[in-house]
Amino acid sequence: MTTGCAYYPEHWSEERWELDAQLMKEAGLTYVRVGEFAWNKFEPQQGTYDFSWMDKAIDILAAHGLKIVMCTPTPTPPPWLTALHPEICRVREDGVRISTGARRHACANVPAYQTFSRKIVEKIAEHYGQHEAVVGWQIDNEFGCGETTRCYCEHCRAAFHRWLQETYGDLETLNSAWGTQFWGMSYTDWSQIPIPAITTEPQSPSMRLDYRRFSSDSWVNFQKMQIDLLRAYSPQRWLTHNFMIRHWSLDYWKLSQDLDFVSYDNYPHGLRGPAETAMNLDLMWSLKRKPFWIMEQQPGPVNWHPYNPPVPEGQVRLWSHQAYVHGAETVVYFRFRAAPIGQEQYHRGLLKWNGEKDRAFYEAQQFTSEIKALPSLHRIPAKTAIVFDYNDLWSIELEPYNRNFSYWNLVYSIYEAYWQHNIPVEFIPREASDLDHYETIIVPAATLIHPQEIIRWQKWVEDGGHLIITFRSFTRTYSNTSATQELPAGLTNLVGAKVTSFDSVPPDDYHDWYNHRLGKRIRPVDSTFVTFEYKIWAETLQPTTATPLFQYADGLLADHIAITQNSIGSGRVTYLGCWPNDFNELGRALGWLPSQHGQLQEQLLQAPNGRIWQALLNHYEYPIDEVAPFDVQYSQVSDE
Amino acid sequence: MTTGCAYYPEHWSEERWELDAQLMKEAGLTYVRVGEFAWNKFEPQQGTYDFSWMDKAIDILAAHGLKIVMCTPTPTPPPWLTALHPEICRVREDGVRISTGARRHACANVPAYQTFSRKIVEKIAEHYGQHEAVVGWQIDNEFGCGETTRCYCEHCRAAFHRWLQETYGDLETLNSAWGTQFWGMSYTDWSQIPIPAITTEPQSPSMRLDYRRFSSDSWVNFQKMQIDLLRAYSPQRWLTHNFMIRHWSLDYWKLSQDLDFVSYDNYPHGLRGPAETAMNLDLMWSLKRKPFWIMEQQPGPVNWHPYNPPVPEGQVRLWSHQAYVHGAETVVYFRFRAAPIGQEQYHRGLLKWNGEKDRAFYEAQQFTSEIKALPSLHRIPAKTAIVFDYNDLWSIELEPYNRNFSYWNLVYSIYEAYWQHNIPVEFIPREASDLDHYETIIVPAATLIHPQEIIRWQKWVEDGGHLIITFRSFTRTYSNTSATQELPAGLTNLVGAKVTSFDSVPPDDYHDWYNHRLGKRIRPVDSTFVTFEYKIWAETLQPTTATPLFQYADGLLADHIAITQNSIGSGRVTYLGCWPNDFNELGRALGWLPSQHGQLQEQLLQAPNGRIWQALLNHYEYPIDEVAPFDVQYSQVSDE
Amino acid sequence: MTTGCAYYPEHWSEERWELDAQLMKEAGLTYVRVGEFAWNKFEPQQGTYDFSWMDKAIDILAAHGLKIVMCTPTPTPPPWLTALHPEICRVREDGVRISTGARRHACANVPAYQTFSRKIVEKIAEHYGQHEAVVGWQIDNEFGCGETTRCYCEHCRAAFHRWLQETYGDLETLNSAWGTQFWGMSYTDWSQIPIPAITTEPQSPSMRLDYRRFSSDSWVNFQKMQIDLLRAYSPQRWLTHNFMIRHWSLDYWKLSQDLDFVSYDNYPHGLRGPAETAMNLDLMWSLKRKPFWIMEQQPGPVNWHPYNPPVPEGQVRLWSHQAYVHGAETVVYFRFRAAPIGQEQYHRGLLKWNGEKDRAFYEAQQFTSEIKALPSLHRIPAKTAIVFDYNDLWSIELEPYNRNFSYWNLVYSIYEAYWQHNIPVEFIPREASDLDHYETIIVPAATLIHPQEIIRWQKWVEDGGHLIITFRSFTRTYSNTSATQELPAGLTNLVGAKVTSFDSVPPDDYHDWYNHRLGKRIRPVDSTFVTFEYKIWAETLQPTTATPLFQYADGLLADHIAITQNSIGSGRVTYLGCWPNDFNELGRALGWLPSQHGQLQEQLLQAPNGRIWQALLNHYEYPIDEVAPFDVQYSQVSDE
Ligand SMILES: [Zn+2]
Ligand SMILES: [Zn+2]
Ligand SMILES: [Zn+2]
Repeated sequence: MTTGCAYYPEHWSEERWELDAQLMKEAGLTYVRVGEFAWNKFEPQQGTYDFSWMDKAIDILAAHGLKIVMCTPTPTPPPWLTALHPEICRVREDGVRISTGARRHACANVPAYQTFSRKIVEKIAEHYGQHEAVVGWQIDNEFGCGETTRCYCEHCRAAFHRWLQETYGDLETLNSAWGTQFWGMSYTDWSQIPIPAITTEPQSPSMRLDYRRFSSDSWVNFQKMQIDLLRAYSPQRWLTHNFMIRHWSLDYWKLSQDLDFVSYDNYPHGLRGPAETAMNLDLMWSLKRKPFWIMEQQPGPVNWHPYNPPVPEGQVRLWSHQAYVHGAETVVYFRFRAAPIGQEQYHRGLLKWNGEKDRAFYEAQQFTSEIKALPSLHRIPAKTAIVFDYNDLWSIELEPYNRNFSYWNLVYSIYEAYWQHNIPVEFIPREASDLDHYETIIVPAATLIHPQEIIRWQKWVEDGGHLIITFRSFTRTYSNTSATQELPAGLTNLVGAKVTSFDSVPPDDYHDWYNHRLGKRIRPVDSTFVTFEYKIWAETLQPTTATPLFQYADGLLADHIAITQNSIGSGRVTYLGCWPNDFNELGRALGWLPSQHGQLQEQLLQAPNGRIWQALLNHYEYPIDEVAPFDVQYSQVSDE
Repeated sequence: MTTGCAYYPEHWSEERWELDAQLMKEAGLTYVRVGEFAWNKFEPQQGTYDFSWMDKAIDILAAHGLKIVMCTPTPTPPPWLTALHPEICRVREDGVRISTGARRHACANVPAYQTFSRKIVEKIAEHYGQHEAVVGWQIDNEFGCGETTRCYCEHCRAAFHRWLQETYGDLETLNSAWGTQFWGMSYTDWSQIPIPAITTEPQSPSMRLDYRRFSSDSWVNFQKMQIDLLRAYSPQRWLTHNFMIRHWSLDYWKLSQDLDFVSYDNYPHGLRGPAETAMNLDLMWSLKRKPFWIMEQQPGPVNWHPYNPPVPEGQVRLWSHQAYVHGAETVVYFRFRAAPIGQEQYHRGLLKWNGEKDRAFYEAQQFTSEIKALPSLHRIPAKTAIVFDYNDLWSIELEPYNRNFSYWNLVYSIYEAYWQHNIPVEFIPREASDLDHYETIIVPAATLIHPQEIIRWQKWVEDGGHLIITFRSFTRTYSNTSATQELPAGLTNLVGAKVTSFDSVPPDDYHDWYNHRLGKRIRPVDSTFVTFEYKIWAETLQPTTATPLFQYADGLLADHIAITQNSIGSGRVTYLGCWPNDFNELGRALGWLPSQHGQLQEQLLQAPNGRIWQALLNHYEYPIDEVAPFDVQYSQVSDE
Repeated sequence: MTTGCAYYPEHWSEERWELDAQLMKEAGLTYVRVGEFAWNKFEPQQGTYDFSWMDKAIDILAAHGLKIVMCTPTPTPPPWLTALHPEICRVREDGVRISTGARRHACANVPAYQTFSRKIVEKIAEHYGQHEAVVGWQIDNEFGCGETTRCYCEHCRAAFHRWLQETYGDLETLNSAWGTQFWGMSYTDWSQIPIPAITTEPQSPSMRLDYRRFSSDSWVNFQKMQIDLLRAYSPQRWLTHNFMIRHWSLDYWKLSQDLDFVSYDNYPHGLRGPAETAMNLDLMWSLKRKPFWIMEQQPGPVNWHPYNPPVPEGQVRLWSHQAYVHGAETVVYFRFRAAPIGQEQYHRGLLKWNGEKDRAFYEAQQFTSEIKALPSLHRIPAKTAIVFDYNDLWSIELEPYNRNFSYWNLVYSIYEAYWQHNIPVEFIPREASDLDHYETIIVPAATLIHPQEIIRWQKWVEDGGHLIITFRSFTRTYSNTSATQELPAGLTNLVGAKVTSFDSVPPDDYHDWYNHRLGKRIRPVDSTFVTFEYKIWAETLQPTTATPLFQYADGLLADHIAITQNSIGSGRVTYLGCWPNDFNELGRALGWLPSQHGQLQEQLLQAPNGRIWQALLNHYEYPIDEVAPFDVQYSQVSDE
């Protein structure tokens, strides 16, 4: 386990570099990430390259034993380039072309951007590819940051048409898959196909889902172009990219595929609390089922929050430990020193604006020395997996049916229940085929139908697995049209029940129309004493081979079945017909979760010698079970 | 009384059509509406027409005795056409051209759209005009749906200039009528006249009111073009168009004029409850004072609501009965089967996606058989009329003065009071000349001055009528400039009072400025015990010949007169100076409404033999006076 | 002291002018403002001028002894001109060109607008420059009204580049001052520099602050062009411009410089109440430290408020008196008669639409006669000054850090405390050098560093002044980059303390992240009994020579110093580290404010004979200390 920082030698005078390097060493850091916004310094005018300044900076850093993570600077095509090729700048859905002056203004599908990116990456790769101090590469920086994944320019329109041709082959197939006959929109030429744009009524959800896929693929391809160059010029160096919190426009399963490992920028202030931070960390680990880097760790208050709330003492250190116990192998702080220029002046660093140490410096230093004192602890594979899929997320995003239906929130509410009970969880993609090491797999609103998955699940359940599937699963084709079979389409045998109706549940304060309420509560079929509340979505079930577990307790749905369980081979399948207000409560009632949980986060880890360690983290501002506020305790708990 | 459904043979395989026809017959349906979005199937490429598929579908339907309502498919110009003529697509007020891919993307004033629309309508009219199974036509579909009435393209700009030339003749007249000298905007050439567009301060309310008129006229003309063709090619068939709930951008009085009868798409989930549903139904009946069709009846939850709340059992049947007792002669359900493709996949039908019967199938079936068992009952002409006018609505929409002043809400709050007391109401236009069959006419905020109306009212009151006029009436010229006479302009004699001041009443929770309150209450001039609250608008009155009925009870307006009554001949005129919080309360105090009302809706109807029937409808989810929840009872109550 | 009205002869028939003039005299008015929107009447087509109509109107007014304030009509370039030069119309930040049809549609940087403006101003100046009845000029009307100061057209882009060249000389200086290396945005050609435009992440705060300065300067220059012409053609006439309430896009210190005196349009319904009205009036007086005009006085309800609340009887008269006691020497009512045409039909006047006297007529008449009965009273110089600066306002507006941080609100909350205690206040610019007559100077969030100011303050404090400086002062360079020294940068000696941390304080109802609270209260260092709440912003201080006065009382900041006081020479410097919820409370505790205050506004004024008069104003709707609601009492209180 190591630490590092993001450093911008180009922001400071050369005279300062030596002192900065000393301070990095003093903090115990190993890595320095450089260069991701320096295209304008590397190529100050078209075709003129200058690496001398960075060479000097690296020399100084390397002289102190620091290792360099070099970035490709493609997020910020310089002003001379966008002046030469204004078409590089992205276009909004309403046709307005994005201005320069910020970052991530480029569209991945513009030939000029691709050409110039290829050239600068090649030059940098050539220059630093074999540099002794350069140990690895970060490609670009935070693809998609600031809602930049999707562009609506003419180049994207043409690229989308090519993508559709590759995907569907001919127009007849596309017209049929999308159901373009609806509202009479069948296409007789590829060029007629619209991209998402301003209309008063919505455009086809099939087209719009494909545009989301296409846009994500555009950046996967853009990354692949760079990866191919770097593999050629910089062998034996690893390649990574820094992923973001709560990021929904790029398919991270696909984006991570070509990388050696995943990096992640950990900004808990963009999230709901420690459970959602943990969920993002677990997702990062799961993308490649291996240790990942924190490439940017929040070091204090940020600049992009409506209120930029304070960060209590110890919190930055605790965030670092939390990342570590979820599988991060390096924590890089963003940034070394607070910037006195530009758009992030209110973002803190390890040093203050005036160059003095800020609180984060000491916390990073402490974290580094604490972690170095431990053996190299690793995650223990979890027995519980949650399916997470971007196509399902997008399909629901496009047509939530109930304004409050968020796929992410559904996944989170399930994850949170397990997290609170200290049960480790991994995420898996819809395509996951190696399921044997899981005891429980939870499938939240797996909207799109994947026929192969049914076969894999069937076998895994027969062998003893417990599959938990929720409402809204297997209701749509891969083209985002509705299943015309019984629901859940293709799953009725596995579930042992069919869905006879589904309804949106308006929130309690909804009173536009009279008080026709589906009801608010479910109860076990064999008890009228205990009831649980549900929200947002409710399906009624008709069991065939399954056993009813819960039924609706009141309102229009009273007495209809809400939850069933089907035994298959030595396993079972639970189907959840409604969204419980509290997954904890229901999970405990159904025996999925233990009956109690403490307030400390407990994480078990494994040392290289096979022994099991326990980490206890206190995320609260008061002491719990002798763990101080924002503190952590590690101890060995087995000799295995 | 008959029923029907909207059917899209083009969405389903031919093999299914026979079964669908059988199911329609099983439900008892008579009519099938087809074709409104099928331009692309009728004319798959420019100049190539194909009616064979529809011929086949109609053959199957007709073989089961079903009658066809054929639609013209002009709401969805196909992709090949908009690719050929991109200017067909509407332009937003900010200059953004609407994309294709949805529906109603066309501007009524674009020559290419007009030409191609004429051609396809002519072809269809030629082909089906004399078809035995085709009994009538729906022109286009929901003009204005999705805020599409107004377009701001260059063709509209030119057409508006032509419309203005026809309306005003010369620029001097226009400059004078609009008062363009304000802010120095007099025009020396027609081409200088702006259309509504982005500005930071508002544009002329006179220009903007005319643009609303012009935009509405554009679609009336577009419809007329089709009517002329259909009358020629399809004699002895009726022509209709399907109107919408709460639709305010088209002048429905004008749009209905050229049609044989009005149709209406009844989606109660876009409305406040059964009273507003009733108001829309009464408006539809009133447009031509004759029975109308429900061309689309909501069959369950819809897809376009933020929450798409559930629909309780029996509700669809009750909505059908409610339409019937308000004067609908046919109820067509939308749609036969839920669509698995396109933008309305979450909209229910009589059948589910998988082709099984959904709950609405059984309710439609029950409704059909119940209604067929009754004699053909018709509305009894009402003795109470409410004036409803789009120009008044638009004028207030453009300058509400108080953000909460909504013309529609004012009309509704009056209507609701009558509806709750089971007093039948009709709506009349400002131009209505045949007033003799009314005992009471209510005139809510008739903002614009109609001199002829004064003369007609004078006579009708003298003959015994009771005219109730509210605040804000007769305050503006037809060009939306302020009257420079005493208010209500031209009406002071009839009212027997003049308005000495008017004020906006901020809501109770308004506290930007100190607590200078006009006051909140009025009271009878002869009592200090009873007071009623008012809101939004308050005028002080100075009676000449009228008797003061109510005065303000508190605040800055205390003791000023609020309501007057003037006796003229054998009739009287009541002037209401403020907007009562509760029209029920005030209506009862003034003797306009009976002192009590029940919860059941009671509607009296007349059989062909002259006998009077009573329908009792329970809109609630609990039984009332022995009528079950969502149930209806019909009984004969007189032998007249 | 005199009164007047805005009059539009072009809105009324010539026959009416004589009666209007008589009514103006009857009201006691002296001045009539004319012409500001009449470009189209003065120049009905390009190069054709017509002053005859205005000559006639002026003849009639002058015949009644009324004096004319002539306006230049540049706010409304006529339709023929914008048809000829469409590029005159402003462009929004998203690239949409503003339409004609309203007012203030022009961009100050378009050559055609400048040329035609110069021509019409020259013609009018030539014609009326020496006219006997014309006593002064209003240039244009309400620069910036309706958010029109900033335009984003190509002419502005070019002008901004010129402005930058003049300001920075060369690109290296600009790149360095702005810190363009951040996100790699250094410029190699002036034309590459973006203006504010649509991006997904923000553009450089340095560029954006300069664009605010440039935009303000554009109008200052546009005004200067007119001033030069008028000075040449109309000697011995004064020149003014009418400034607005709460106006933040123009630097009023700069805009007032070239004028003879400032005028102000007093619309209290756009403000929070009498204290904010007073603040605007004091700011107007302070701009040139001399009497100003009210060029437009609200005469009753307006048309532009969401609710346009009523105005109680006596309020217009009281507003006039309030303006007078704050230093207005003339009050001009807007407008003489309510307009029946155009966009302001719901705006009241002295006369109603029908030409009858409205309530404001009588109140203006009463005010005029009351004031004429008094000696000519003038303001007494205040001993307390508040620094007010547009650059500080803009810097914070661009990056509030805490969404609730408003520079204006901070200034207001301080001003209000003094106003409530009847302590007179003046505003001074950051550049103010003549400080000797002040005892206290308050410096709210003086964000930008002004080195000269430090020297001036040092001396003034040594001589006995009390300087009160708040949080967030001296934290940024003039280019809006962060200070890299200790904070407050350059002020640590004067303050005798340094800022060791600053934090945003989220509001109480903020719960996105856990409950990490800085705390809510401060207390005197020597007492635990009294505590005061703070909000929005909190800094911790480390005194060097200063004495701690207050410390934080709870939460994460507990025990850190919040307020310090430093003695220097015979003066002192107080530094306020947090934003108190209630400046009254704190001001009293620190001895800045007396311990009590009444509800009447008390203003002391000086007569020409040196004697002191007291004015007592009751802004409430109930009597206070024998002053009736909305009444005022003047009395001589000294013989000095
Ligand atoms: Zn693009
Ligand atoms: Zn158009
Ligand atoms: Zn401009």
